[in-house]
Amino acid sequence: MTSLVSVKQLNEPMVEWLLRQAQYYIEHEPKIKINGHAVNLFFEPSTRTFLSFQLAAQRMGLTLLDFEVEQSSVKKGESLIDSLQTLDAMGVKLAIVRHGDDWPKLIAEAGLKMSVINAGSGIHEHPTQALLDALTIKQHFGSFAGLKVAVVGDVRHSRVARSNAYLLQMLGAKVSFSGPEIFKPLDLSEIPWIDFDQAVAESDVVMMLRVQHERHETAYAVADYNKRYGLNAERLKQLAKHALILHPGPVNRGVEITDEVMGDPRCKILQQVTNGVAVRMAVLHWCLREESNGQLVPA
Amino acid sequence: MTSLVSVKQLNEPMVEWLLRQAQYYIEHEPKIKINGHAVNLFFEPSTRTFLSFQLAAQRMGLTLLDFEVEQSSVKKGESLIDSLQTLDAMGVKLAIVRHGDDWPKLIAEAGLKMSVINAGSGIHEHPTQALLDALTIKQHFGSFAGLKVAVVGDVRHSRVARSNAYLLQMLGAKVSFSGPEIFKPLDLSEIPWIDFDQAVAESDVVMMLRVQHERHETAYAVADYNKRYGLNAERLKQLAKHALILHPGPVNRGVEITDEVMGDPRCKILQQVTNGVAVRMAVLHWCLREESNGQLVPA
Amino acid sequence: MTSLVSVKQLNEPMVEWLLRQAQYYIEHEPKIKINGHAVNLFFEPSTRTFLSFQLAAQRMGLTLLDFEVEQSSVKKGESLIDSLQTLDAMGVKLAIVRHGDDWPKLIAEAGLKMSVINAGSGIHEHPTQALLDALTIKQHFGSFAGLKVAVVGDVRHSRVARSNAYLLQMLGAKVSFSGPEIFKPLDLSEIPWIDFDQAVAESDVVMMLRVQHERHETAYAVADYNKRYGLNAERLKQLAKHALILHPGPVNRGVEITDEVMGDPRCKILQQVTNGVAVRMAVLHWCLREESNGQLVPA
Repeated sequence: MTSLVSVKQLNEPMVEWLLRQAQYYIEHEPKIKINGHAVNLFFEPSTRTFLSFQLAAQRMGLTLLDFEVEQSSVKKGESLIDSLQTLDAMGVKLAIVRHGDDWPKLIAEAGLKMSVINAGSGIHEHPTQALLDALTIKQHFGSFAGLKVAVVGDVRHSRVARSNAYLLQMLGAKVSFSGPEIFKPLDLSEIPWIDFDQAVAESDVVMMLRVQHERHETAYAVADYNKRYGLNAERLKQLAKHALILHPGPVNRGVEITDEVMGDPRCKILQQVTNGVAVRMAVLHWCLREESNGQLVPA
Repeated sequence: MTSLVSVKQLNEPMVEWLLRQAQYYIEHEPKIKINGHAVNLFFEPSTRTFLSFQLAAQRMGLTLLDFEVEQSSVKKGESLIDSLQTLDAMGVKLAIVRHGDDWPKLIAEAGLKMSVINAGSGIHEHPTQALLDALTIKQHFGSFAGLKVAVVGDVRHSRVARSNAYLLQMLGAKVSFSGPEIFKPLDLSEIPWIDFDQAVAESDVVMMLRVQHERHETAYAVADYNKRYGLNAERLKQLAKHALILHPGPVNRGVEITDEVMGDPRCKILQQVTNGVAVRMAVLHWCLREESNGQLVPA
Repeated sequence: MTSLVSVKQLNEPMVEWLLRQAQYYIEHEPKIKINGHAVNLFFEPSTRTFLSFQLAAQRMGLTLLDFEVEQSSVKKGESLIDSLQTLDAMGVKLAIVRHGDDWPKLIAEAGLKMSVINAGSGIHEHPTQALLDALTIKQHFGSFAGLKVAVVGDVRHSRVARSNAYLLQMLGAKVSFSGPEIFKPLDLSEIPWIDFDQAVAESDVVMMLRVQHERHETAYAVADYNKRYGLNAERLKQLAKHALILHPGPVNRGVEITDEVMGDPRCKILQQVTNGVAVRMAVLHWCLREESNGQLVPA
């Protein structure tokens, strides 16, 4: 089986295949269904990503098992692999894993038969988010070469920023980071850290990150966040007409983005959501392509 | 898309269509399935109505998303519409909504693409309950014209009473209310309030309401409720042989209805339950008929 | 409908049919699906058995209803049968019941239309566990006549021990019990209670039971349990080369079985898990064979 733990596993032809396949699923149902079971292991709560994977899995023919992480014994790391070996022996084909640390990688490397998809690993990676962002960008610009993408906000704690930076650079985009100094990452020093007003004025894509209050070690005042580092009607005037505004959601309205910006035609947040289901279908297809006896062919 | 928020949306031909379609689903599986996703938003707990909608949705080909209202952010009204726009963008076709206030209406009017079905809105309406009651009555009497229906009990707090009164009057039945004076509704003054013994003696249908302890502002002693306003072996002697006893369930045994009455052949509570699944299938069919490319045709 | 509450309902030809059918489902999907709804009523938590039944039900075409015992009114015994009559009237075909007492029997005898499968009843019975153990034994030895099976550990509190003792003796095996004296059962006096080292040395199958801390009336020290009554590298040397080690799971590692024993080729715990799904499919097939209009035929 194949797993998707990090965007670093991907190369350009694979990304091209995934985005083309996702585009197909936006308008079509799969011709061949996989018919099997997947399990979701969400150690961190997530309504949005969980629903998106649930829809994607079911449209691909996968039944999602009702597995309550809270009530099961897998919360204790020691028994996790025992539990997953049990699911393996039951014939479960895929685990969708979200965890505050890098457990998706841990599980993918445990020698199990099942595939693993990383649905968010602490501050490390969120590969399906980066793919859906790439799809949204591709739908508007056609290609990535030379595009200026600014990732703005809480970069230090953001798996979205990391997966996007790796993926978009590989595809030829020019990525920069911006936001409050205290959110500047300790890693990724090769990516320029620029002034926010410069980011808005120069970029083809402005990707606003959610302020992740729950990951901060010290409290951070959001009172004047929007004025200094958020998008509002005033700052929107500096943004190029052809530019896109992205946000992984859910938006803290009035913090990263004001209501006026939500209604601006350059703001593609709902399109990102639609793309999310399709990209996850493509990733499921890719991971489980051997399960369909070769019948699950690309569009 | 079409929504069903109130029985006041319906006219006689539409009700006739829904009841005929429901009757078909009692004996047949749908020929064409809808194949899509619905979400249930139950802000008030309900085992019975929830299971009935779950069965109806799945028999129509809809997969119900596992959406935990308690754990999600939609409990805060402000973020509800944002969350539903997300579900809309994911391609969810229908929301089944129960709420202590009139949120089904609120959601249906929010400009979403998805259909909304009211699964119970505070003391306001419960349209699928009224439709299943109408189906049960039609199965026994063939038509509604001139039928005497008494709705008995906690009318003031009852959405079941309101939806039934509107629907059955539209269909030609003569509706009256009865019960303890403190349960007399402040609205609906056009419907006669009659003595309970008179109601039992004269009616073709006696619809007993559940005492809704949880909605009362002041405590109410149920000790002598059955003796004064409930059905028991003694009072059953006054009921016409051709009459029906209905109850939306779950019954407070010994309060609204005693065990002997539960066993009486005129008591159609389990038939109501069977009809509930079929009526909800018909309502789903009606709301999503455009989703089947015209293939989902009436029986 | 047919229910499976106790292995005492079965005779040899029926067991043979169930095991042959299960063997078929290990390698094949069912040709005909049942298409209907089942409900799980788990009054005791169980991740493993619940998932196994969930997979088995879905592979047979049954949709499992999302029924929250905790939140429903069925926890009160008085209203249980009312609730189940409601499910019956909704067309639910099967209930999978686990309870700390013998409620599976209670429900199966309540005159409902639905089938009932016992998924574990207090210390009484766990018939599908015994059947999956029997399948694992049959896969290795071909038949049961004369096989020596030792059931070791907390026999007094074990439904697994009881169901296995009844079933394996009926099939011709020689069953003995072993473990700490305080775990010797008060019933089943016809089955010999032997020394643990003798059990290991003589048996073709050693079935280790889970220490059920939650069922003990007085606390029991597990500190030296493994040394005295558990399997470890030292004791493994006394076990015949052709022998099998079974355990119903989940294993308390280092208590009943050490890590070295888990890795021994004679230890068939994961094979038991795989067999569990297939055996439950066969049991569902057996209980609901009339639901398929005769189309659900044996392999």
